[in-house]
Amino acid sequence: MDMPNRVEFREEGVREGFQIEKRLYPLADRVRLVEALAETGLRHIQVASFVSPKAVPNMADSAEFFAAIRKKPGVAYTALWLNEKGFWRALESPGVDMQARLALYASSEFALRNNGCSAAEMARRQRDWMAAYAKAGVQVETLSVLAAFGCNFEGDVDPARSVEAARIAEDLCREAGYGIPKIMLADTMGWANPAAIKRVVGAVREAVPTARVGLHLHDTRGLGGANVLAGLMMGVDLFDSSVAGLGGCPFSNPGDTTAAGNVCTEDMVFMCHEMGIETDVDLEALIECAHLAEAIIGRRLNGHLLRSGSLARFREAKAMALQA
Amino acid sequence: MDMPNRVEFREEGVREGFQIEKRLYPLADRVRLVEALAETGLRHIQVASFVSPKAVPNMADSAEFFAAIRKKPGVAYTALWLNEKGFWRALESPGVDMQARLALYASSEFALRNNGCSAAEMARRQRDWMAAYAKAGVQVETLSVLAAFGCNFEGDVDPARSVEAARIAEDLCREAGYGIPKIMLADTMGWANPAAIKRVVGAVREAVPTARVGLHLHDTRGLGGANVLAGLMMGVDLFDSSVAGLGGCPFSNPGDTTAAGNVCTEDMVFMCHEMGIETDVDLEALIECAHLAEAIIGRRLNGHLLRSGSLARFREAKAMALQA
Repeated sequence: MDMPNRVEFREEGVREGFQIEKRLYPLADRVRLVEALAETGLRHIQVASFVSPKAVPNMADSAEFFAAIRKKPGVAYTALWLNEKGFWRALESPGVDMQARLALYASSEFALRNNGCSAAEMARRQRDWMAAYAKAGVQVETLSVLAAFGCNFEGDVDPARSVEAARIAEDLCREAGYGIPKIMLADTMGWANPAAIKRVVGAVREAVPTARVGLHLHDTRGLGGANVLAGLMMGVDLFDSSVAGLGGCPFSNPGDTTAAGNVCTEDMVFMCHEMGIETDVDLEALIECAHLAEAIIGRRLNGHLLRSGSLARFREAKAMALQA
Repeated sequence: MDMPNRVEFREEGVREGFQIEKRLYPLADRVRLVEALAETGLRHIQVASFVSPKAVPNMADSAEFFAAIRKKPGVAYTALWLNEKGFWRALESPGVDMQARLALYASSEFALRNNGCSAAEMARRQRDWMAAYAKAGVQVETLSVLAAFGCNFEGDVDPARSVEAARIAEDLCREAGYGIPKIMLADTMGWANPAAIKRVVGAVREAVPTARVGLHLHDTRGLGGANVLAGLMMGVDLFDSSVAGLGGCPFSNPGDTTAAGNVCTEDMVFMCHEMGIETDVDLEALIECAHLAEAIIGRRLNGHLLRSGSLARFREAKAMALQA
């Protein structure tokens, strides 16, 4: 197995988790969760999105949310936006670590539903995004390729679509005078499988060899962990994930926010550690965050270590017994 | 990826699932679930165990259970036992397809708790089992190596223990005049990870190259799917699994029967099919069985396709749209 020595998890549970909930949650609870996550060693926490408060009521107070967080040095507190207006709102909000991204759709049908425009129009709009980023003096950090593995509205998606998206983004960045640093392939609606991970990651890497390719995976159909493993075996060292398995695409299981969301950060950190892969994350502290998330959300969440714990306590008991 | 073309899933959800429940369930419901499972293409259904009814009240009526099932030709309806007495009870029960197994423990502490004897004593008892099997005219089909990857009571378990168990079983079968056909490595308490799967499967295969090595995996810590994938990539083509993710070792999450159980049959069948691996199982019919299991158990079960469904309906809609 040709796996990386160190893997980075970008925590998206707060943004992904609360965005799909119908109930509104107190700001203080969400702040507490972000602050606890920042103590675990996670370096990248996606806090909230700047999107229409009508579409996503839980994101109406994103600016206040960012302002309320006591920041830990070395941790990036990032935001998501789906259009230029959202970008400017994020930029004007104190406390947002601006990590600019491009967003392209591998499925046009999904672009229509999620973004209100075709995939081609979304690609065109990326020129405006680039202009806005240049004006604001920020460089693109990431390209997100949405629905890269399949789409409930368009069916199976050809890896060529992800390659095309990667090339568009590469061209835009080249015109701006820099290379594209990261490409996140998103399995937005849970269509990926390990063989597809290998195909799409391989195709995108071949097309844009200078970019770091990461994965944004959902556990919709129970293959999240296997898909992470397939990524690791391709040398992928960057994953988006959610504490306690929070989140989920509202298009995947409409109306059922209790269905599986993103791959679960602590379960995947555990997998890495068990295989000798470093993450710089304190797993036990992260499991505590998962319990906190569950207490805040107020129902059973999908992470496994939430129920079983890690193996640390058994190993410690064994070590103590051997000493005695 | 060097994966098999065809994989066999042995369904253990009925035995694994009901054995850990505190409530008793009507015989008719359990019979209905077994009969539905037999219609999906699964060829091997573990129905019940012949163990102490005091220890496992839900297995008190195992003989009646087997007798009540309308059998489908080509499907094996098998039983589990942990001692000779259980074997004779199974043999005397009409309708049990006798698939004799040896059972060895990779962890002695777990042997004590699960079987009331040390691993060494359990190994010694296998001679008596062999004598009983010979007397009954049945050949050993399978060796189960319990706690092959780790143990809550003994900590990490050396692959050498599984190799030792495999060699003991091979010797016993050789003395009886035949080879050992299958070795099931069981991750009874959820300690396995993909790298460990590779290590232990590799070590056992090297020691006993003539045996077919299979995996009995639990999803206790969320690595079930990744561990199945690791097995597939080692060419493993035999897995125990449970419909709807039923089951779980009572020692893993004591008192919490809602925690993750065995790897979920329909989710893993889905993974295989998506990667072009045949299982001979009708996935949609199996998902219906998972819904039936959930209705019978009477609470939310852990399988993912139960919530999201497979991808078939999206692909069919797409195909119809293309025709229109």
